[in-house]
Amino acid sequence: MNATIDLNADLGEGFGHWRLTDDEALLASVTSANVACGFHAGDPATMRRVCELAAERGVRIGAQVSYRDLAGFGRRAMDVPAAELTAEVAYQIGALDVFARAAGTAVSYVKPHGALYNRAVHDAEQAAAVVAGVRLAGDAAGGQRLPVLGLPGSRLLAAAAEAGLPTVEEAFADRAYRPDGTLVPRSEPGAVLHDPEQVVARSVRLARDGEIVAADGRVLRSAARSLCVHGDTPAAALLARRVREELAAAGVTVEAFA
Amino acid sequence: MNATIDLNADLGEGFGHWRLTDDEALLASVTSANVACGFHAGDPATMRRVCELAAERGVRIGAQVSYRDLAGFGRRAMDVPAAELTAEVAYQIGALDVFARAAGTAVSYVKPHGALYNRAVHDAEQAAAVVAGVRLAGDAAGGQRLPVLGLPGSRLLAAAAEAGLPTVEEAFADRAYRPDGTLVPRSEPGAVLHDPEQVVARSVRLARDGEIVAADGRVLRSAARSLCVHGDTPAAALLARRVREELAAAGVTVEAFA
Amino acid sequence: MNATIDLNADLGEGFGHWRLTDDEALLASVTSANVACGFHAGDPATMRRVCELAAERGVRIGAQVSYRDLAGFGRRAMDVPAAELTAEVAYQIGALDVFARAAGTAVSYVKPHGALYNRAVHDAEQAAAVVAGVRLAGDAAGGQRLPVLGLPGSRLLAAAAEAGLPTVEEAFADRAYRPDGTLVPRSEPGAVLHDPEQVVARSVRLARDGEIVAADGRVLRSAARSLCVHGDTPAAALLARRVREELAAAGVTVEAFA
Amino acid sequence: MNATIDLNADLGEGFGHWRLTDDEALLASVTSANVACGFHAGDPATMRRVCELAAERGVRIGAQVSYRDLAGFGRRAMDVPAAELTAEVAYQIGALDVFARAAGTAVSYVKPHGALYNRAVHDAEQAAAVVAGVRLAGDAAGGQRLPVLGLPGSRLLAAAAEAGLPTVEEAFADRAYRPDGTLVPRSEPGAVLHDPEQVVARSVRLARDGEIVAADGRVLRSAARSLCVHGDTPAAALLARRVREELAAAGVTVEAFA
Repeated sequence: MNATIDLNADLGEGFGHWRLTDDEALLASVTSANVACGFHAGDPATMRRVCELAAERGVRIGAQVSYRDLAGFGRRAMDVPAAELTAEVAYQIGALDVFARAAGTAVSYVKPHGALYNRAVHDAEQAAAVVAGVRLAGDAAGGQRLPVLGLPGSRLLAAAAEAGLPTVEEAFADRAYRPDGTLVPRSEPGAVLHDPEQVVARSVRLARDGEIVAADGRVLRSAARSLCVHGDTPAAALLARRVREELAAAGVTVEAFA
Repeated sequence: MNATIDLNADLGEGFGHWRLTDDEALLASVTSANVACGFHAGDPATMRRVCELAAERGVRIGAQVSYRDLAGFGRRAMDVPAAELTAEVAYQIGALDVFARAAGTAVSYVKPHGALYNRAVHDAEQAAAVVAGVRLAGDAAGGQRLPVLGLPGSRLLAAAAEAGLPTVEEAFADRAYRPDGTLVPRSEPGAVLHDPEQVVARSVRLARDGEIVAADGRVLRSAARSLCVHGDTPAAALLARRVREELAAAGVTVEAFA
Repeated sequence: MNATIDLNADLGEGFGHWRLTDDEALLASVTSANVACGFHAGDPATMRRVCELAAERGVRIGAQVSYRDLAGFGRRAMDVPAAELTAEVAYQIGALDVFARAAGTAVSYVKPHGALYNRAVHDAEQAAAVVAGVRLAGDAAGGQRLPVLGLPGSRLLAAAAEAGLPTVEEAFADRAYRPDGTLVPRSEPGAVLHDPEQVVARSVRLARDGEIVAADGRVLRSAARSLCVHGDTPAAALLARRVREELAAAGVTVEAFA
Repeated sequence: MNATIDLNADLGEGFGHWRLTDDEALLASVTSANVACGFHAGDPATMRRVCELAAERGVRIGAQVSYRDLAGFGRRAMDVPAAELTAEVAYQIGALDVFARAAGTAVSYVKPHGALYNRAVHDAEQAAAVVAGVRLAGDAAGGQRLPVLGLPGSRLLAAAAEAGLPTVEEAFADRAYRPDGTLVPRSEPGAVLHDPEQVVARSVRLARDGEIVAADGRVLRSAARSLCVHGDTPAAALLARRVREELAAAGVTVEAFA
């Protein structure tokens, strides 16, 4: 048994006086930190602090890019023209990178947030625009090819692959799946699983056996290399720790994706 | 006769649908472009475009960092705590740098904008906070020491020098000076000179002879290596061209500061 | 001949240091001013000034409500949940109303801006949410029923009528129409008419004869009681004056809708 | 014994996805709610909900006006020109009033927030600008004279009185006082009292006896008609309840100021 999995969570999702995520606690459990870059959350001082903490703990830093929508926390889909979206994505990556690099590391992957994540699952134009922004930022960093973290089967990962960027599929331990492998939308009942034991069990099964049980009981195969644990609830950090511990107990190596 | 001067102007000071500066025309005349970074002006798409145009024309790119104040165009002084200001400055530099580097160059200096510029003339704490942000961004870029462009005698240049950063003094051809070498505040009559011939003549005298005539007629010595021409009026681009032409005609070499 | 028409235009669409519309000139020609309320444009000081000028000149004030999107000038459609959109609309109306009332008048109608206008043409949920916001603001003003200005056949006007609000149809003199009475989208060639003579002629025909010629030459009937003239181009104010003069010359009474 | 006191607290200080104050719990204890208006906190949907809850419970609504500074939570002093500040204050009052009136009540007083509150203690120009905004909003509401809540001896209350507005002095049960009656700045140790018993005891003494004990033990006289309890800590709602209960137990009538 030598299964390996990455644990990612959204961090730094406060803004100014407001706090949301328990960044310090989450950093003790995750291997990849999706750091908010100021468009849906994440003021510069928070970004700096989270990058410093992540660097200290050896947690990899990713740019959690978003629509420019503080009031909606980036959860409201926006028809942003492609050229604007590309520039907005690159802007966010560049802004975060300064703190990551000053802390001795660098932005090592990109994951869209909220409505942009969902939109880029099926919207080829926005997916391509996001990827163009990632490439722009990679060009700025001397021709780097920043991996894109996303949903299996999404337009986003297709566009990233087509553009020559590494892609990393992720799965959600606390979200219900449809038989076709897509997520049950948050607007439907049962979309989010709240029982910690169930979430832990699903995490282990996913990481060890590559299996996810869909809402109808069907067993789906998953090649996800990263597991997303949510960070924006009071109990999130505790759950992340439980998941990590149980994964280790099950013989799964928890480490950042290669 | 081998006088040399740099010409700098504020560029990219629109936001979204709003335009302010005639970036393309100004880039034909200046040697250093202070590009707005999104806090007082400058959306990502505009930043990208200005960086690409500047790179094409061989105009050096500087980060025109500002208070976070779109509604006030960065002209309202703010009591930003030092740690926040440092992070905000680094954030802006990083965001701009992604476009500068993707265009084949890099952010090569930093100049604060508006109220931050004025505040950093005399406020040692904010001056030090700005410099710390510049250093942070330089560390992120592999230990680079980004030059700081500012007013002779300012706390900002003092703090930059103390922190080991190169400093570049600038002068204003269209601003009235007090006998002590400080600028007549905009709130006073005669603070801004509107006669193009006068502005041109002062530019030449400054660049060639190192002299500025103060409001009371006194002749001041200036070691300014850069001359700021304003970009935010309809006639700005024309005036910048006139200044450049007359400098050349007077035998002054117009090029980016070393 | 006693045709009557209202002339409306978007005003106050600057923000802080940025100016877009020549408010003073436009107010000399229009009878209804759609004043930006701060979400896509329109800072408080500008809102106040435009309201004072409009009140002096007897021009009626309408609230030009929008998505919260300064960076996109309200031109990027957003999936704002209904409850949020309703509150955002009411917020904007209330904010503008303070300046309108302080100037001795009041917000007298509501017209959505940009992407919200377009979205509310066909999106029943957002149309209903906007109308709920208008009703909320009307309730706040003692049970007032604020008229809604919009496109004939739109979901917005249907929702307004259903909610018991007066509806006012508008037409565009400088936009091409499809044979079915909808506008040719801005993304298509020929969508916007730039020939002033043509715009003037179409205005007169619309106001006097209730006719619009579609892009394919077909003559459409229109019951529009208001004609929208665009305000956001340099020549807009001149064109608005020409339209008003030619309407008067053609015997059309130009006055605010009843 | 028939002492009477008003209890005020800041409410609705979340923004979008972020929550700060436990509005529902605080509304069970306070008699005046200082509702955030969107500039330092307070999105429209939250404003609406807080106004509805306050109206239901008979809690009076005040406009907690602020600098435009979401990133700094309104705690960074800004040099806003007087005309802009006046318009910004009126804008915020108008926006809140729409929700208060739709809920069957109205904005009944104004209290500046954070840095604006502190600045208006000693800055006569900004104090006058705030008062002008309050008057503008009052004019809009048919010549209403909205009371201003503030610090005894402040420029703000002086300007309000001069402008013919009712003034209401407030005291802070959880802040240390200097012998001259001013507050110990937050930057100094001991500025904020954290012991609930002490805060309760000080509240009762202030309300019943009109006395505050300064940091040096001196007993100060206070004519404060309102007592501010802080709402932005987890324990705030509990403390507010304790204060209210103990005031009642001490025979103090807790009701909104006349």
